Amino acid sequence: MSDTIKYLLSEDQMPKDWYNLAADLPVPAPAVLHPGTMQPVGPDDLSPLFPMSLIMQEVSTERRIEIPEPVRQVFRQWRPSPLFRARALEKALGTPAKIYYKYEGVSPAGSHKPNTAIPQAFYNVEAGIRKLTTETGAGQWGSSLAFAGSLFGIEVQVFQVRVSYDQKPYRRALMETYGATCVPSPSPLTQAGRAILAQRPDHPGSLGIAISEAVELAAQRDDTKYALGSVLNHVLLHQTIIGEEAILQMAMAGDDPDVVIGCTGGGSNFAGIAFPFIGMQLRGGPNAKKRRIVAVEPAACPSLTRGQYAYDFGDTAHLTPLTKMHTLGSTFTPPGFHAGGLRYHGMAPMVSHVKELGLIEAVAYHQIGCFEAGVTFARAEGIVPAPESNHAVKGAIEEALRCKREGKAETILFNLSGHGHFDMMAYTDYFAGKLQDLTYDEGELAQALSGLPAVPA
Amino acid sequence: MSDTIKYLLSEDQMPKDWYNLAADLPVPAPAVLHPGTMQPVGPDDLSPLFPMSLIMQEVSTERRIEIPEPVRQVFRQWRPSPLFRARALEKALGTPAKIYYKYEGVSPAGSHKPNTAIPQAFYNVEAGIRKLTTETGAGQWGSSLAFAGSLFGIEVQVFQVRVSYDQKPYRRALMETYGATCVPSPSPLTQAGRAILAQRPDHPGSLGIAISEAVELAAQRDDTKYALGSVLNHVLLHQTIIGEEAILQMAMAGDDPDVVIGCTGGGSNFAGIAFPFIGMQLRGGPNAKKRRIVAVEPAACPSLTRGQYAYDFGDTAHLTPLTKMHTLGSTFTPPGFHAGGLRYHGMAPMVSHVKELGLIEAVAYHQIGCFEAGVTFARAEGIVPAPESNHAVKGAIEEALRCKREGKAETILFNLSGHGHFDMMAYTDYFAGKLQDLTYDEGELAQALSGLPAVPA
Repeated sequence: MSDTIKYLLSEDQMPKDWYNLAADLPVPAPAVLHPGTMQPVGPDDLSPLFPMSLIMQEVSTERRIEIPEPVRQVFRQWRPSPLFRARALEKALGTPAKIYYKYEGVSPAGSHKPNTAIPQAFYNVEAGIRKLTTETGAGQWGSSLAFAGSLFGIEVQVFQVRVSYDQKPYRRALMETYGATCVPSPSPLTQAGRAILAQRPDHPGSLGIAISEAVELAAQRDDTKYALGSVLNHVLLHQTIIGEEAILQMAMAGDDPDVVIGCTGGGSNFAGIAFPFIGMQLRGGPNAKKRRIVAVEPAACPSLTRGQYAYDFGDTAHLTPLTKMHTLGSTFTPPGFHAGGLRYHGMAPMVSHVKELGLIEAVAYHQIGCFEAGVTFARAEGIVPAPESNHAVKGAIEEALRCKREGKAETILFNLSGHGHFDMMAYTDYFAGKLQDLTYDEGELAQALSGLPAVPA
Repeated sequence: MSDTIKYLLSEDQMPKDWYNLAADLPVPAPAVLHPGTMQPVGPDDLSPLFPMSLIMQEVSTERRIEIPEPVRQVFRQWRPSPLFRARALEKALGTPAKIYYKYEGVSPAGSHKPNTAIPQAFYNVEAGIRKLTTETGAGQWGSSLAFAGSLFGIEVQVFQVRVSYDQKPYRRALMETYGATCVPSPSPLTQAGRAILAQRPDHPGSLGIAISEAVELAAQRDDTKYALGSVLNHVLLHQTIIGEEAILQMAMAGDDPDVVIGCTGGGSNFAGIAFPFIGMQLRGGPNAKKRRIVAVEPAACPSLTRGQYAYDFGDTAHLTPLTKMHTLGSTFTPPGFHAGGLRYHGMAPMVSHVKELGLIEAVAYHQIGCFEAGVTFARAEGIVPAPESNHAVKGAIEEALRCKREGKAETILFNLSGHGHFDMMAYTDYFAGKLQDLTYDEGELAQALSGLPAVPA
């Protein structure tokens, strides 16, 4: 029987500010470089792609940045999101650990992505922009920006990685229901897309390619900007509402996590739950308990655990600035495992930086074990996680089983970033024994890494 | 921009009782008859199928029936569910009406069905039952009972209408994720299924057939009972938590509906929102405002608006008792429109009874108009409704447009029974112009009605 306990904040308790980790870092993150000059980029370099309000957030070192009231008004539809104590899961595992999860699947798009889609749409509308271009993999981000676009009356064009476009038509239908247009990438609409199609007409696409296409279109028109669903500082900033709420909710529960866990693709939902806890530790004082912060990534696309910490492009066509991050190389194409939202060659520079500073750990798991964890979770807690979120569930279950072996009653908190209602075919494949633990080709990884741009020290 | 307002009750305000309309009816509903004797059935006649606690709820005339604490404990994961004021939709329609919706898609299964699945699983486990059989159409009910079964540790076997089993594999995957078994109906597992397959091996199935199969299996074993997702009094009773919460939330909003709207297939979500309001009116006193209560059904399966009010079987193989209801005939097979949860030949006897008493109205709409309404709603409010729920959305929009024509600032409340995340292919078909406004065959309807059982007056 379900023994789940829910900790719910009132609307009044919804955070009024985002938390900016840059304010508390002992060492600032490495500069973003212009690929032509190899000099740090300034706000003007980014202005073809983003409105100035988001660029200023990208480079801000203010600790707290106010969430605009119209954004909070939209958030009230589903925020503050619930935090649950997973007592039924604890019992199923027989662990002395206490397991809590923050649940972001309550948004209308079913994931954490609207936390940044809504403010990005707001700031662009405020700047007079009429159209946003973006990329999406499985479609969580694309459908979230489509949702935000419909609420704020801004046009949205999504380049969806072709393999997902073909295999997962349900999230595409969601984007179209919200009024967005969705095209498979690589597409003939851009120079970047045409160049790749000329080499390989059946190219399955990648997030790096889709980013190139979206960036190329946005840079051509004054009334069009680009929106990214992860990686950038301002995106991670917007997701910190997750951790800010979780801190209040853990206090409601009279508890404090020893371990904080999130899954990582580009790094935004992980940063969302983790950065506010890292900040408490860095600032010292009564809340400066030493907590382990664990990023869980797919073994088939392991940027944090197998990538190189180096300057690299965010996209395949090399249209973006250079950022220092854990990267598998911008030409790396991961195998087609089911957690499409985690199939990105790089890691958010800020997540990479705190990894280098020793403030977080990283671990990689294969997909079959992650689905097994997700099914265990669903049968105990009733919520079916997204394939991406299953990585965090797997991480939490592994920590809980470690606690069982060691006889420790630690407190574990993880971010359940979305529900799996759009991904049930992946579960069907899992039950049918059709899933494989895919791995990348070591030779291809070496080749992608050998192509990293040369940056003067 | 979203102007939605959310009215959220605290857990303490979650209703402690279900509301039983039978206590306040001016005329009791007609008796349920044994098909052999044509005499009213007693509790013992039903005991092969249901535990005694549910049978006593089925025949109770107590006004308030306590919700067991273990059931409330499960409900706390997502209840009380939110009520929203749809200000963005009001603006999009340009109506002076105020539109509120109660949202039941927040449950882990994505619909209102867990409101009865959870108590049904609880009472069966309490009675020592080890296995439940049931039917499902599109899969909302089957996945909800599977969810309840996983939480309470009771085995669940679902007979899914074959056309849905084949066309909508996603909800089947959800049932399997929760550990239930799901077989297409008609199946070779039962006499009822084999008889139909012998006549027509490619029979697409119907809810009536699937009910026959589930009932047949349950009646054979002492440790197995049957669970129904709609129609019966105890199921409607369990859904009244929707309306009980909505009454408190409308009071929070300082408002009171002039029109209350729900979609009807078997009638349970409609009864859930409507019966508590009907009860206030019947009891008189300060809350006895005359409200219009509107049931919205699919034009392709219009039991309330085109059916006959007569005694009929609930299933195709005639294994169930006879109930007086609006029916299209137990052999009627509706065309394959997308709102699979509304494809049932009969209407809940209690809903039929209040229709005959003039306490509710009914209206029927075709599916294309309902999807159009759903898309309008999604772009304004951000939530994509299930195809079934789109009928309620359509009903609410039509009332709001009537208010606009008449210049009336009425208050409209409707039940948004579930989200459409499992039904995105239907939206894809809608956008591609592939949907048709299907109609039933008048000759087939006449034939089905001519086969109604003869019942002595």
